[in-house]
Amino acid sequence: MTDKLDQLRQDIDKVDSELVALFAKRMALTRQVGEYKNAQGLPVYMPQREAELIARRRDEAEQAGISPQLIEDVLRRVMRDSYQSQDKVGYTKTRDDGRPVVVVGGKGKLGQLFVRLFESSGYPVAILEQEDWPNAEQILSNAALVLMSVPIHLTESLIAQLPPLPDDCVLADVTSVKSAPLSAMLAQHGGPVLGLHPMFGPDSKSIVKQVVIACHGRGEVHYQWLLEQIKIWGASIHISGAARHDEAMSLIQVMKHFSSFVYGNHLMSEQAPLKELLAMSSPIYRLELAMVGRLFAQSPGLYADIIFSDAKHVAIVERYAERLSGLVEFLKNKDKAGFIARFEQISQWFGDYAEHFLQDSRELLVRAQDVRTVSSQEKSLD
Amino acid sequence: MTDKLDQLRQDIDKVDSELVALFAKRMALTRQVGEYKNAQGLPVYMPQREAELIARRRDEAEQAGISPQLIEDVLRRVMRDSYQSQDKVGYTKTRDDGRPVVVVGGKGKLGQLFVRLFESSGYPVAILEQEDWPNAEQILSNAALVLMSVPIHLTESLIAQLPPLPDDCVLADVTSVKSAPLSAMLAQHGGPVLGLHPMFGPDSKSIVKQVVIACHGRGEVHYQWLLEQIKIWGASIHISGAARHDEAMSLIQVMKHFSSFVYGNHLMSEQAPLKELLAMSSPIYRLELAMVGRLFAQSPGLYADIIFSDAKHVAIVERYAERLSGLVEFLKNKDKAGFIARFEQISQWFGDYAEHFLQDSRELLVRAQDVRTVSSQEKSLD
Repeated sequence: MTDKLDQLRQDIDKVDSELVALFAKRMALTRQVGEYKNAQGLPVYMPQREAELIARRRDEAEQAGISPQLIEDVLRRVMRDSYQSQDKVGYTKTRDDGRPVVVVGGKGKLGQLFVRLFESSGYPVAILEQEDWPNAEQILSNAALVLMSVPIHLTESLIAQLPPLPDDCVLADVTSVKSAPLSAMLAQHGGPVLGLHPMFGPDSKSIVKQVVIACHGRGEVHYQWLLEQIKIWGASIHISGAARHDEAMSLIQVMKHFSSFVYGNHLMSEQAPLKELLAMSSPIYRLELAMVGRLFAQSPGLYADIIFSDAKHVAIVERYAERLSGLVEFLKNKDKAGFIARFEQISQWFGDYAEHFLQDSRELLVRAQDVRTVSSQEKSLD
Repeated sequence: MTDKLDQLRQDIDKVDSELVALFAKRMALTRQVGEYKNAQGLPVYMPQREAELIARRRDEAEQAGISPQLIEDVLRRVMRDSYQSQDKVGYTKTRDDGRPVVVVGGKGKLGQLFVRLFESSGYPVAILEQEDWPNAEQILSNAALVLMSVPIHLTESLIAQLPPLPDDCVLADVTSVKSAPLSAMLAQHGGPVLGLHPMFGPDSKSIVKQVVIACHGRGEVHYQWLLEQIKIWGASIHISGAARHDEAMSLIQVMKHFSSFVYGNHLMSEQAPLKELLAMSSPIYRLELAMVGRLFAQSPGLYADIIFSDAKHVAIVERYAERLSGLVEFLKNKDKAGFIARFEQISQWFGDYAEHFLQDSRELLVRAQDVRTVSSQEKSLD
C-alpha cells in the first residue's frame, strides 16, 4: 500500500514541476510585455487589465471545481514578481532633455531605491553625499531635479545649505513630515518645489500599487513630469495639504511607533518569556508581536526624529495617555457595563469600517499562516 | 503594434488557463492522498514531506531562472486548500468504541468547528445547548467525551451544573483562560479531566499547523486518544501549566485587546478621518488599522469577559498605564537622549528576536500588499 502513496506523491511532484515550467514561461511573456510597455511609454501597472484577467481565471477555477480565491492569490503573487522584474527591463522616461537628476543622500536606503528607479528609466543620475558638498555647486549646476533623501533632523539645514539651483530645476524631498521641509524648500529656491512622502519602506523591490503622497509647493506645471514618472513606475499619487498630511501622520505613524515602544517596554519590564509566548501564540498574536518587535531591530534615531519633530506629536501622545488612564478606571472599578458601553460607542463610530477591517484582517491572517516565520522556526519541525 | 500586445496577452491568458487546469489536477491527487491517509490512520500534515517537496521545487525554480520564493509561496497556498478539503474526505478516529462525543455549546462558532471535526472523523456527536439541559442526564449518559465550548463567564457555572458523568468519560473545555475552568472540572468530575485552549479563531476552515494548548488535569492516559485526534487533524499540542498559560495570555491576549480598545477610543476622540487615513497609509499602517478596527466588529461581551475574568489582568493593565506615563515624560521634557537610551535597552532585551520579527513582518507585509482590501476598494481602480 505504501507503493500507492509513493505513486501519488510522484504524480504530485510531476504536477509541481510543470508548475515551475509554467511560471518560467509566464515570466518570459510578461517580460516581453514589459519591454513593449517601456517602448510605448505605457504604465507598468494597468488595473483594468489586471482585474479582467483575474475575473476570467476565477470563472474558470469555479468551473474546474477549485477555489476561485486560490487562483486569484496565485496570480497576484506571480504578478508581484513580474512587476519587480520591470526594473531590469527599464521604464519610459517622462522628461527627455538629458539633464541630470541629483539625489541628495542617494547612498541611503530610500535614496538608493530612487537612484535605481531613475537609472532604470534612463536618466543621468548624480549622488550628493556628505563628502560631496564641497563640489555641490558643480554637481547641481545643470540639474533637472534635486531630490532630498536625508534623515529628518538634517532635512531643513541641508536644504538651507544648497547653492543656487537653475531657475527651472525642481526641488523635492521625500521626508516623512511635510510642512517644515516644504517651507524650507520654498524659502531656499524660487523655482518649482514639491513635497513627497513615499508610503513604503526602503525594502520595497517595486513601488507598483504603492502610494506616494504629494504636497504642492510651487510651479505645478514644471514638476508634472515627475508625478507622471512616479505613475509610470506603478505607484499612485495622493495629493494632500502639508499640514493635513502631518496631522494624519501623527495619528497613524507617531501613535504606531509610540505604542510599539510602550508595549516593547512593557514586555521587557514584565520579563515576558518571548520564546514561550511565541510557542503559545495564535497567528494573530504572533503577527502582533512581530509588528511590535520589528521596531527594535531598527534605528532609534529615526523614530526619535519623527516623534520629537513636532510639538503636536507630544500633545497627541499626552492626550492618548490621559485617555488610557480614563479607560483603566473601568477595570479598577470592575465597571464591565461601562467598558461595554464605551466599546459600543467606538464600534458605532467605526461604522462599516469595523466590518471591512475584520474581513481584511482575516485575509491577512490566513496569509500570515502560510509564512514560515523565522521566529518560530525552531518548533516548525516538531 | 497593439497587435503585439494583444498577442502577448492571449499567450499569458493561455498560460493562466493551464495553471487553473494544473491546480485542479493537483487537488484531485491530494484528495486521493487524503483518502489514503484516512484509510491508514496517518496525520494530514507531514512536515518532513512538505519541507522536502518545497526544497526540490525551489531548486528547480532557481534552475528555470525564476524566484524560488515564488514557487514556495504558491505551493504553500495550494497546500492550504488541500488541507481544508480533508474535511470532506474525513479523518481517522483514534477511539473506536462507538460512544458519543458531547459538545456543550455545540451551536456556538467554535463549538460548530469541533462538531464538524469530530463528525468528519466518524464519531457520533451530540450537542447540548441551553434548551437541552432538562435532558442533560440522558444526553451525557454514555459519553466518551464532554467538551465545554461556552462563553467564559458561563463556563464555571455550567460545569457545576453537569450531572454525574460516566467514570471514564473525559471532561475537557476550550475556554481561553485555564486555571478556573480546570479547577471547576476537577471538582465536578472524578474521572479524566483536560483543559484545552485552541489558539485559532472559529473562522479557521482547517486547524492544520495551528496550535492547541493543553493543560493536564487528571488521568492523562485516558485522554491520550483526544490529543492524538487533534494531531491527526493537523494541529500541534503545546503542553503548559494552567497558571503559566493564564500569565502568558494576560501578556499577549489581554494587552492586545486592551491596547486596541485604547487606540480605537483615541481615534474616535481625535475624530480621525478614517477614509483619508486609509488613502494615505502605507501597507504597514493599513495593517495596523485593520488589526485595531477588527476588534470593534466583534462582540464587546467576549472581550469584557476575558479582560474582567481575573484581577491579575487589571493589575497588568495598571502597570502598563503607569509605564506609559513614565515614557510620556521623555516627550514632555524633550528628552530625546533618554528616549533613545530606553529604546536601546529594549532592543538589547529583545536580542535576536528583534531581527527575526523584522524579517517576519517584512514577509507578512509583502503578502499584505497582495490582498485587495475591502477597506480601500473604493480607490483601487483609480
